[in-house]
Amino acid sequence: MKILDGKKTSNDIKNEIAIEVAEILKKGGRPPHLAAILVGEDGASLTYVNSKVKACQRIGFESTLIRLSKDISEDELLEEIDKLNNDPDLDGFIIQLPLPSHFNENKILNAVDPNKDVDGFHPSNVGKMVLNQPTFLPATPMGIMELLKRYQIETSGKHCVVIGRSHIVGSPISILMARNTNPGNATVTLTHSRTKNLKELTLQADIIVVALGKAEFLTGDMVKEGVVVIDVGITRVADQSKKSGFKLYGDVHFDELAEKASYITPVPGGVGPMTIASLLMNTLQSYKTRN
Amino acid sequence: MKILDGKKTSNDIKNEIAIEVAEILKKGGRPPHLAAILVGEDGASLTYVNSKVKACQRIGFESTLIRLSKDISEDELLEEIDKLNNDPDLDGFIIQLPLPSHFNENKILNAVDPNKDVDGFHPSNVGKMVLNQPTFLPATPMGIMELLKRYQIETSGKHCVVIGRSHIVGSPISILMARNTNPGNATVTLTHSRTKNLKELTLQADIIVVALGKAEFLTGDMVKEGVVVIDVGITRVADQSKKSGFKLYGDVHFDELAEKASYITPVPGGVGPMTIASLLMNTLQSYKTRN
Repeated sequence: MKILDGKKTSNDIKNEIAIEVAEILKKGGRPPHLAAILVGEDGASLTYVNSKVKACQRIGFESTLIRLSKDISEDELLEEIDKLNNDPDLDGFIIQLPLPSHFNENKILNAVDPNKDVDGFHPSNVGKMVLNQPTFLPATPMGIMELLKRYQIETSGKHCVVIGRSHIVGSPISILMARNTNPGNATVTLTHSRTKNLKELTLQADIIVVALGKAEFLTGDMVKEGVVVIDVGITRVADQSKKSGFKLYGDVHFDELAEKASYITPVPGGVGPMTIASLLMNTLQSYKTRN
Repeated sequence: MKILDGKKTSNDIKNEIAIEVAEILKKGGRPPHLAAILVGEDGASLTYVNSKVKACQRIGFESTLIRLSKDISEDELLEEIDKLNNDPDLDGFIIQLPLPSHFNENKILNAVDPNKDVDGFHPSNVGKMVLNQPTFLPATPMGIMELLKRYQIETSGKHCVVIGRSHIVGSPISILMARNTNPGNATVTLTHSRTKNLKELTLQADIIVVALGKAEFLTGDMVKEGVVVIDVGITRVADQSKKSGFKLYGDVHFDELAEKASYITPVPGGVGPMTIASLLMNTLQSYKTRN
């Protein structure tokens, strides 16, 4: 069994981008610029958004964190988005999800200029992904594809079973894996809460992507020997023995799967860091089309 | 075995729309208006587009057929599209595909105002479909969903195998069948030219959608008893015994499948007429948001 090391791969990508940024600055160009909007005080969201800001700093991107009160109105948030859409020196921005419940998330995300939507959530970008046109791919599925590519995992003609149909992971990764690209060209089965015979399907899979958010859901008896396992889940479980007070679990029973899988992503250190790397890659891509 | 009668269902839908249009006209409103652009002289395309015009006439829609020479430039076609985008009395329009080879099809389709894109081909509408937001669904997959709905075929928790990943049928129907909607909520496997073990998969399927364009590809030995079969293929094969000089074949070996299937769409008279019905439904929907 080999680890698909997202942390290392993400660092490789950051180093590659840092070299490109240094070149840009040497030639007198402005640095790529990513902004993030965080509404409210959610602790996990703040952690995520801070790690994005830190990643920007490390590779020489300019970054802006816009913190807004959870009590602002939808119109005020839309105004803020409009400002970022029209800022000529900004290459991309993200709105950290989830938003407080009084916001219409679709309305907010649809207001982002697709040309600055480096999270790849705008319908127009999602559609271009389906139609295999150039676009910003959604960050988490893009990170998974990049990981498969760098580890040269064969996907063509393989049977990939995706567990979970969320808009940000399950649904787009099922689309990307089936496209006529490399990686891609897999036979893809998309499963979800209504699926009746999940184990029957996972037992046939050459590649499994689990994106459910249920700790240790995928167990050893559910997979065949040699399977490639991508674990997108991340669940915090209280654990007094840890300094942080919790332990992180993936959707995969790691110890059981480790015995049967050919490749597996750990949690943490697998898909998570790759999501941030994708965001940086998208921002750099946006910068290049602007400069 | 029961026939999923697309011709009858399409006629039912047309009659329902005709009643709505009559109501609109009685109240002094203008009729819904659909336009079609046909570039070049392709015989099959002319047949398709004419049947759309005829359908409009029958139900009381205004229709406009714009025929352009195959030699016009991309800019001239884009100008024509711009005119239609800005015509306040037009509810929707389609560009009959395929376009002559010197056109960049993506560029042309992306120029259509998404709010008039009643074929559902614009990236922004494709993305909204993925994200389960209100939109115009692509006409052929929408017609399949409508047929399943009107025949009350249970899809939730069923295993649906889609054969073919085209942008206009295979890929979008795989997305629609997996969404949390009714019909929908199926476990969906998307297969294509790189799939290695197709028969193994089709033998597990409760529902099969074939959209390949290979005459009589799906044979009796490939399916289990009771399967629901949706045949999207249509291939013309020369046949001297026919007045037209050809016979139409679906992607399904109908006689073999008829013995095992619980429901099956015929070719012709199955999915084809439903595509036109969807186009009319989308145009009416567009009209309603404008009036």
